[in-house]
Amino acid sequence: MHNMQARSATPLSARTRSNFTAFRSPSENPWKDLTDVETASVVQWLFQQPELNLTAANDAGEWDNTISLVELMRPNKSDVLQYLDHDQPPPTRYAHVVLDVRATLDPYYAEILVGPLPVTNQSATTWVPLEYPYTRKTQGRIRNLDADHDTIYSEWLYKISASIADITLDLFNGTALGLDNDTIRISGISPLWQHDGRIIRWDTFWNLPVDDFDASSILPLGLFFKSDVTGRDPSKWKLEGWFYNNIFYETTNAFRKAYYSPGFVKLPSNTEGDWARTDQQGPILPEDQKQPPVMVAPSGARYALDTDQKYVTWMGFSFYIGFSRDTGVSIFDVRYNGQRILYELGLQEALSHYAGNDPVQSSTAYLDSFYGFGPYTFELVKGYDCPIYATYLNTSFYESESTHTHIDSLCLFEYDADYPIQRHTTPSYVSTTKNIYLTLRSVSTIGNYDYTISYTFHLDGTIGIDVRASGYIQAAHSAHNTNYGYQIHSALSGSMHDHILNFKADLDILGTANSIELTSLVPITTSYPWSNPNQPRNTMHLSRRILSSETESRLNFISPNSQQTTMLSIINQDARNAYNESRGYRILPSSTSPPSSGHLTIINSSTLIHAAHWSEHDIQITQHHDHEPRSAHPYNNQDVYNPMINFNEFFDGGDLNQTDLVVWINLAMHHVPTTGDLPNTVMNTAVAGVRFVPGNYFTGDQSRGTVNMVRVGFGDDEDVVEVEAFGQAGERVEVVVRPVEEVLWG
Amino acid sequence: MHNMQARSATPLSARTRSNFTAFRSPSENPWKDLTDVETASVVQWLFQQPELNLTAANDAGEWDNTISLVELMRPNKSDVLQYLDHDQPPPTRYAHVVLDVRATLDPYYAEILVGPLPVTNQSATTWVPLEYPYTRKTQGRIRNLDADHDTIYSEWLYKISASIADITLDLFNGTALGLDNDTIRISGISPLWQHDGRIIRWDTFWNLPVDDFDASSILPLGLFFKSDVTGRDPSKWKLEGWFYNNIFYETTNAFRKAYYSPGFVKLPSNTEGDWARTDQQGPILPEDQKQPPVMVAPSGARYALDTDQKYVTWMGFSFYIGFSRDTGVSIFDVRYNGQRILYELGLQEALSHYAGNDPVQSSTAYLDSFYGFGPYTFELVKGYDCPIYATYLNTSFYESESTHTHIDSLCLFEYDADYPIQRHTTPSYVSTTKNIYLTLRSVSTIGNYDYTISYTFHLDGTIGIDVRASGYIQAAHSAHNTNYGYQIHSALSGSMHDHILNFKADLDILGTANSIELTSLVPITTSYPWSNPNQPRNTMHLSRRILSSETESRLNFISPNSQQTTMLSIINQDARNAYNESRGYRILPSSTSPPSSGHLTIINSSTLIHAAHWSEHDIQITQHHDHEPRSAHPYNNQDVYNPMINFNEFFDGGDLNQTDLVVWINLAMHHVPTTGDLPNTVMNTAVAGVRFVPGNYFTGDQSRGTVNMVRVGFGDDEDVVEVEAFGQAGERVEVVVRPVEEVLWG
Repeated sequence: MHNMQARSATPLSARTRSNFTAFRSPSENPWKDLTDVETASVVQWLFQQPELNLTAANDAGEWDNTISLVELMRPNKSDVLQYLDHDQPPPTRYAHVVLDVRATLDPYYAEILVGPLPVTNQSATTWVPLEYPYTRKTQGRIRNLDADHDTIYSEWLYKISASIADITLDLFNGTALGLDNDTIRISGISPLWQHDGRIIRWDTFWNLPVDDFDASSILPLGLFFKSDVTGRDPSKWKLEGWFYNNIFYETTNAFRKAYYSPGFVKLPSNTEGDWARTDQQGPILPEDQKQPPVMVAPSGARYALDTDQKYVTWMGFSFYIGFSRDTGVSIFDVRYNGQRILYELGLQEALSHYAGNDPVQSSTAYLDSFYGFGPYTFELVKGYDCPIYATYLNTSFYESESTHTHIDSLCLFEYDADYPIQRHTTPSYVSTTKNIYLTLRSVSTIGNYDYTISYTFHLDGTIGIDVRASGYIQAAHSAHNTNYGYQIHSALSGSMHDHILNFKADLDILGTANSIELTSLVPITTSYPWSNPNQPRNTMHLSRRILSSETESRLNFISPNSQQTTMLSIINQDARNAYNESRGYRILPSSTSPPSSGHLTIINSSTLIHAAHWSEHDIQITQHHDHEPRSAHPYNNQDVYNPMINFNEFFDGGDLNQTDLVVWINLAMHHVPTTGDLPNTVMNTAVAGVRFVPGNYFTGDQSRGTVNMVRVGFGDDEDVVEVEAFGQAGERVEVVVRPVEEVLWG
Repeated sequence: MHNMQARSATPLSARTRSNFTAFRSPSENPWKDLTDVETASVVQWLFQQPELNLTAANDAGEWDNTISLVELMRPNKSDVLQYLDHDQPPPTRYAHVVLDVRATLDPYYAEILVGPLPVTNQSATTWVPLEYPYTRKTQGRIRNLDADHDTIYSEWLYKISASIADITLDLFNGTALGLDNDTIRISGISPLWQHDGRIIRWDTFWNLPVDDFDASSILPLGLFFKSDVTGRDPSKWKLEGWFYNNIFYETTNAFRKAYYSPGFVKLPSNTEGDWARTDQQGPILPEDQKQPPVMVAPSGARYALDTDQKYVTWMGFSFYIGFSRDTGVSIFDVRYNGQRILYELGLQEALSHYAGNDPVQSSTAYLDSFYGFGPYTFELVKGYDCPIYATYLNTSFYESESTHTHIDSLCLFEYDADYPIQRHTTPSYVSTTKNIYLTLRSVSTIGNYDYTISYTFHLDGTIGIDVRASGYIQAAHSAHNTNYGYQIHSALSGSMHDHILNFKADLDILGTANSIELTSLVPITTSYPWSNPNQPRNTMHLSRRILSSETESRLNFISPNSQQTTMLSIINQDARNAYNESRGYRILPSSTSPPSSGHLTIINSSTLIHAAHWSEHDIQITQHHDHEPRSAHPYNNQDVYNPMINFNEFFDGGDLNQTDLVVWINLAMHHVPTTGDLPNTVMNTAVAGVRFVPGNYFTGDQSRGTVNMVRVGFGDDEDVVEVEAFGQAGERVEVVVRPVEEVLWG
């Protein structure tokens, strides 16, 4: 096999112990990040294209064009399969570039494709607008509402804040002027209001913590202001009103006048204290000062890893790791015993949609890929985020003409579940099997929230995703918010919100021609040849149905008829097992967050408009197209009426019967914070997951392959030890010991 | 405090290491098993009561009266609370006795109460029929359909089988004659058909494994026969027909005639092979021969245990352990920081309801407390079922005038979840907390299935139950069963079935006067003072509702309106926190089994009739009554039209607003077996659980109390190491290292 990597990442991994078997992947990783050489050469080449009029990031202001992103353009599946399955050369590499074009009155982001790589022959390298992966056909361009971020603060928000400094001092004992000694801060809604061509902001004030704790998002102050910031000329921006204690004031004068009128009601503030701090608090239990149990790996890692190609094998599984700015980790070409099960599995987008009586909470629906999961995938804490013995890998992202590397920000480890995967006791023996699994984990902290995302691999052939949330909630001032959350501190509402995380699961069951089977347990009343025809029996049966097309493929796991349980499997009807059942994998949601739905509670969100239609059902299936690689675009929040990717447009009636399918799965946490979310949300209940479970895929349970099992045989009779006896027909104490006759296996 | 225990269990625990802190419970355990002295004295006393006409078990035949059960009569809650909360003496102890009265034409089980204990003054001891805890008011008596178990086989089933021995030899190469060298066996439905006063059996033939493996339940042979076994006189029993290959034959002659007719279709048999064996099979992966990760407890256990009183404390939690023949482990008086959260938490019943085209699967609905979880709670395999370092405890049960003890059949251990309970990264620090939890576990193997039941305790104050299933499925012959399961082997259908396990959760939130609050996330369209009245906003809000009475307290977690997510909490409206929110605990189902319902799929089961109405909703709330201690009775299957406990009768409109409540929760696995269930079901996906989560109960997250956390501070700036540079505006590789400035906590 080729090795196109000229330089290895060795210098960066010096801190990582080599606790695994190093080996070479059978193929190059077609999804591998651009090498530093590739990125450097693309950046250099871009600066040489005069029509792009680029300025280096360090020199650029708000009216310059800069490079926002350079990363691998992930190759089309059709090309990758030619490489992996048909002995063709690896797909030609291209760079996916995003330009931040701000040297214009109408700033926009421009998606372009640069290549082919390497940039050796200058005349062969070109750039073209990147349009085909997006439903919006505007040459890969989308407006940038964030172009004047610095000016918005310096020339607008701080000046408005200054105009009522007397009031913020009185109310909050602070001012937000953009100075180092500000004790309150301003931030507002996302996405901005975009109705009728106007760009409207709502902003609010937050207390700053008095120490290092990152508690500002639980210190809202309850004063809001609205402004029209359409266009790039601050002189044309308009303050449109203030909102306080459920009263809207159209002007600063009106608000000021009311404020200084008798009877004006001042709300209490939220200020930091121990309640907002995550360090140990309260009496220490003596037993807690002993070392708690800890997982150890006495023989080191039992997986093999090609750190260069980011390729992993473990107990029959193999997969490649990819990483991107927008969505962090994805895994590719997931195989079991050499047979592909998933072409691609990865996060697409994470939505946090709030609601509330106030304009900021009501209008907040963070689409986190805008901020990017990649740049916020930070170093993991060994022994806490992952076991000390885990293998830690680095991740890289592009920023300001540089590749930044976060060391030890992915971890890979085996773990022993606290229960066996199989066991059975009989009078003559007991059989039980250890439940060892592999986890690939990263944590991305997008502002206040930490998302821990784990991909797991199990001995029975099951693959899982678990998302757990911790960090600080974004809370609301409690005034008039009773219907939107519990009051959880003196002036604080645990603002209700839905987290919906969309994952792409491009399963390929024994090839790409697959179908979706819905299998329902259905209550029925019927008679049988053996039953009394006058007394039909109330029982149940299975109903099996194949989804025909995209006209019926946007589904919720919970059927409106709640008496019926429906399971969803992806199968290959042309790959039947010996018993004529289609081989497949079942898609099994698993969650401790309120049972139920993986979809957004809000119907036709006024905040999202068309930006996140993927969030509206639990699981959605489309025909695979190279031009629909992703369900969401990081700049969808910049033009919610006309987003780069409108997921609804994926559903154009495509046939789903024995064709290449993509399953889009939502993991949801419907979060109504309580006092238990203070200071941070705890991860043992803030969790959503899904399992891909073999369904008639193998001939039997694959965990039978492991040697980490035991079968202990007992003697023919239980060995009863009579301890004491009391009188006639009285009580004996018999201790039943089943002596081990032999270890039958293990 | 008193110590009424005359003898300790020391001799029995000699094999258990003392790896925990031993101490004395603050009170006696009011739910503690009868001592051996108590049991012996009750048995002795019973044999002295001539009206009972008892025969010792070893001497008894099918026409003798015997003692089926002697165990503690669990005291009424009202009496226990007087003891625990009001300094009254411990409740008087009574023995709960079941007599198997078979010296009669109409055999029955008689529930009686014997006491008070100890049996010191003979004249003070009495027996009375036990009726008050049952909805059926028949002096604690229920008929025994199993009285002639031996005769049924010897005088009926084997004779019928012998009458077609030529056919079973031809079809199955075996006979079932009750001989040691039988190679096939007979078993049938449970409950028996009980319509119109007739008692009807359906039986079928199963292959026996050719070795030790307990695989018979996956070796059905597809031949069924029906018999009327009403009454105790075998001469009046009637064979009523045969069923084979979807054809019903009214007589043996008709079946025989057809069998020997041309064109009779013979079905293939299921025979044992490696596919049915649990030992290691297939090529051994080299990496798998290394020792996998293992949890160790370097400082020993961090809980304290009173082995005599079966009382446990851990990190603020405390509870008593109880154990019974019918349902195994229950826990009582679960407190956090001394405040009771649960009076009682324990299994009530486990239903496995099958369906199928054949009469045996269709008519099988095992109610497992009939067999009893207690006697089948076997010794655990150290290092597999629980960690090697766990504390193992013994359990005891009554059988044939003896107390039998299964050593090391409960385990108690701490474990480190593979993820932290809390974490947050900021530019200046990262904070993360270990997620250590306590588990109390037992495994009960009821025939083919092993139920692993774990009670868990978490640092945030959460309490959980997880039920996992393994062991052999009960499968069906595949003939004509396509609509009832997947075909999973040559002549085998993975017979569809619902497991529904009912748990009693008697929560007491700051006293017994509690309410149920339903909190729903509801999509709404509305306007606000700050929004455009001509453009109402699509958003969501919370709807909160208090359940008024038992007329509306039989609920499913999934609302028919699947857009709405509803959370259920038990709260005390008279115990508000500082912010006027009612303190409470949320009841959060968690499950990886098909999402969704905790209730039985079948509506008005023709098999169960009135025996398991508790299975028909996910969660049901009743007013607590001393006379409704349990939702199910182990002999409910003996008279399904008139069971000892008809759960429907609990719902008589009782007020649920600020009164003592009991929550009855169903954990369900809707199981459609696949080839992956062969040889055994795997426990990583066969799981159902529930969590009791603090909801505004504390002022903040209780996990802040642990010292097993760390906060690491970074320097003010990231330490960027520039590794290489390429030309103008070219690529630099920057390694972002955030040097630890200091460990801020931990």
